Amino acid sequence: MKLIIEKDYEAMSQTAATLTLARMYQNRRVNISITAGSTPKRVYEIMAPQVKDKSYLDNVYYYNFDEIPVKGEKVGITMRDLNTMYFTPAAISRERIVPLNEQTYTTQMERIRSVGGLDFMLLGLGFDGHYCGNLPGATHFEDEIVTVSSYATPDMEKRLIKNLDRPEQLFDFYLTMGPKAVMETKELVIIANGKRKAPAVKEFLTGTIRNEFPASVLKLHPNLTLILDEEAASLL
Amino acid sequence: MKLIIEKDYEAMSQTAATLTLARMYQNRRVNISITAGSTPKRVYEIMAPQVKDKSYLDNVYYYNFDEIPVKGEKVGITMRDLNTMYFTPAAISRERIVPLNEQTYTTQMERIRSVGGLDFMLLGLGFDGHYCGNLPGATHFEDEIVTVSSYATPDMEKRLIKNLDRPEQLFDFYLTMGPKAVMETKELVIIANGKRKAPAVKEFLTGTIRNEFPASVLKLHPNLTLILDEEAASLL
Amino acid sequence: MKLIIEKDYEAMSQTAATLTLARMYQNRRVNISITAGSTPKRVYEIMAPQVKDKSYLDNVYYYNFDEIPVKGEKVGITMRDLNTMYFTPAAISRERIVPLNEQTYTTQMERIRSVGGLDFMLLGLGFDGHYCGNLPGATHFEDEIVTVSSYATPDMEKRLIKNLDRPEQLFDFYLTMGPKAVMETKELVIIANGKRKAPAVKEFLTGTIRNEFPASVLKLHPNLTLILDEEAASLL
Amino acid sequence: MKLIIEKDYEAMSQTAATLTLARMYQNRRVNISITAGSTPKRVYEIMAPQVKDKSYLDNVYYYNFDEIPVKGEKVGITMRDLNTMYFTPAAISRERIVPLNEQTYTTQMERIRSVGGLDFMLLGLGFDGHYCGNLPGATHFEDEIVTVSSYATPDMEKRLIKNLDRPEQLFDFYLTMGPKAVMETKELVIIANGKRKAPAVKEFLTGTIRNEFPASVLKLHPNLTLILDEEAASLL
Repeated sequence: MKLIIEKDYEAMSQTAATLTLARMYQNRRVNISITAGSTPKRVYEIMAPQVKDKSYLDNVYYYNFDEIPVKGEKVGITMRDLNTMYFTPAAISRERIVPLNEQTYTTQMERIRSVGGLDFMLLGLGFDGHYCGNLPGATHFEDEIVTVSSYATPDMEKRLIKNLDRPEQLFDFYLTMGPKAVMETKELVIIANGKRKAPAVKEFLTGTIRNEFPASVLKLHPNLTLILDEEAASLL
Repeated sequence: MKLIIEKDYEAMSQTAATLTLARMYQNRRVNISITAGSTPKRVYEIMAPQVKDKSYLDNVYYYNFDEIPVKGEKVGITMRDLNTMYFTPAAISRERIVPLNEQTYTTQMERIRSVGGLDFMLLGLGFDGHYCGNLPGATHFEDEIVTVSSYATPDMEKRLIKNLDRPEQLFDFYLTMGPKAVMETKELVIIANGKRKAPAVKEFLTGTIRNEFPASVLKLHPNLTLILDEEAASLL
Repeated sequence: MKLIIEKDYEAMSQTAATLTLARMYQNRRVNISITAGSTPKRVYEIMAPQVKDKSYLDNVYYYNFDEIPVKGEKVGITMRDLNTMYFTPAAISRERIVPLNEQTYTTQMERIRSVGGLDFMLLGLGFDGHYCGNLPGATHFEDEIVTVSSYATPDMEKRLIKNLDRPEQLFDFYLTMGPKAVMETKELVIIANGKRKAPAVKEFLTGTIRNEFPASVLKLHPNLTLILDEEAASLL
Repeated sequence: MKLIIEKDYEAMSQTAATLTLARMYQNRRVNISITAGSTPKRVYEIMAPQVKDKSYLDNVYYYNFDEIPVKGEKVGITMRDLNTMYFTPAAISRERIVPLNEQTYTTQMERIRSVGGLDFMLLGLGFDGHYCGNLPGATHFEDEIVTVSSYATPDMEKRLIKNLDRPEQLFDFYLTMGPKAVMETKELVIIANGKRKAPAVKEFLTGTIRNEFPASVLKLHPNLTLILDEEAASLL
């Protein structure tokens, strides 16, 4: 594991943007997954103008790694957030965005493997150790791409509803690449910033590997980079 | 994961030997770990004459991944068995064999990382899901290189003594690369043959990932090949 | 460059077969090119039974790198020879063999690049420094895939006719991947055996890089292995 | 080859800095060579603050690829310029800078190979097709690391003296990695900007491969990226 500690959120974002951009500069198809959430907001602000209208990046394909479907909406929460934060400002063509949804999820792993697998994934780290839709109690290490019931754990319904405009929009399940699917990616990058993430970062690096803290398993990946700001690293 | 099923033990051994040999043919230092045990016996018989006296393979370094020390002996069980099966018939120079023992184990990971990490590891699969010295109850997924007490589990003493000439030779502990250290290797190959291994193979491929079946975690490695004969694959 | 010198033709062939086979054992599509000619005859004899009926090698695609069309025949000299030596005994499915011919050559590079490029190429070395159809006077270093006139050099017509049953079968041109296309391959392996090849081997390794000795440019490839028997290496 | 055309010098520099920085973010030793000259000035201004005092970049080693020694000075022109532009503002420790000079050049290739070879090289492109010290008439494609006489070509003396404060400082020779040594690098990046470079860029991409235009051979590298601004690309 490569551990990178930067001074602050801006520096962390700059380094994550540099790493993500550089992986795109290849003379072949590149398949990547990028995270929604609040952590990468600045990463995408830095990246978007460097990606927009660059035909030499037409080799890059984006595979969503989780999705919360919304009743009555064509687009789920993850896709909506990625559109706002990155796909729209970076003007990524729709043909190069591969959604994960109710129609596609059962064949998504096969689709990914048929184009050579995922090359790169940018992940966040939740307070509770979650990443993608791998919340405690939601998935197990051996899962590939799965649906998770909206009632899988006592607080799941509440957590999902927080993402919605109205509670009636709650779908029966959400979708996620599970730990096994994520670990199959050639390179993983995890970002985390702020004092409030410091306990999760400490647990990630020093705790046992267990389904109850889902991200713990990612430290077994042979090509992993963890990028923190000083606050997130303050308990190490 | 790449799954290769060969007709019989001979064909499985031939394919494993081909893969292991080919990883050595590089124009740079190559660091590998190879397993003792009965499964690879024929692999090494095939490899030895193709390696012996080949100065173009002087780029290959061998790192032992476990060791059972023996009281009153300079050399442990793993090294003794590898000497007999491979290092001696292949005439590998001692400067290119890096032992794991009581003197070296605390600094072994650092030593491995300083030369670029392990490139390749050939592993067996035990009936109980063990690999290297990762027996059920002996290690945890987050372990790097550790000592395991000879009394760590109820049957550990008995299992270790079976490897010794006389019970008095039993040492207080044995040594092994733990799951985290093994997963850091760039490429893993697991071999298994025979009907008696079929249940372990099935459990490996379809069971949950848990410390109680240590090898289960290896299926999370992004560059893993499993080579079986038809008997070992008979329950799939 | 990795230089491997083996005792004799059999050992050279065994090592080349090992290297070629091992490159196929991947959990993704693998694109390779293999040479016709007399040098690899034994390589293919060793490989064929290890490849035949192995469904786990369905990930391997073969791209012919040169072709001598024959008037009145559907199949050129290279394809005919590869069929006899390897594709037929190894029972390679036609869907995984991509021919180079009058219909395909203008779009072949594009086709190769769209599947990630060639991973591996097994080449012979001619007495005159030729490889593929890159004969002295036929191609230049900057050529990708080209046609070469059957009258390009004073002795070209004679050389081509030697491959035919009857002189009337001579086509106006033959086809070849040029030096630039070959160099784009991720890994190159050159084999040569026998005393008669010793001068070409010496020239390859110690001579200047020039179009007049076409193979000379291949020593600039960053991932090249040269496998010789002792006779071919006897002038080094 | 990957061709990247950016709007202007600033954008070209940003992309080259991103690519160079990202290659450094590895969990292993990384060996790179970077060019002096005027083209990369802005690249290094962008990089320096992102590299300075970053202990996580202690894995990066710098190997100079050419040097013009100066009579009476301890440090040659290339090292002086790289110090000014990058090594000093980025505060690179001297233990991680490997100079090329009269004392080291005969063993430099061996030194580079013993640490796994060069991973990355950032190159400029001269009006006359030169790169590193590979000027027309100075080196040949098969050269590894060589000395070039200060009188090797009619205008060499004049060109070298332009770099010096006083003509008396002219040394008998300068040093350079030759084409063969450069091509052994795993990844090459060439940058060029401005209208005045447009003819050289066109010649590089469309001309024949010949010693008289030294950079022509670099287009045979299987992992090459060319980064231009629109002016440098204006004749394509």
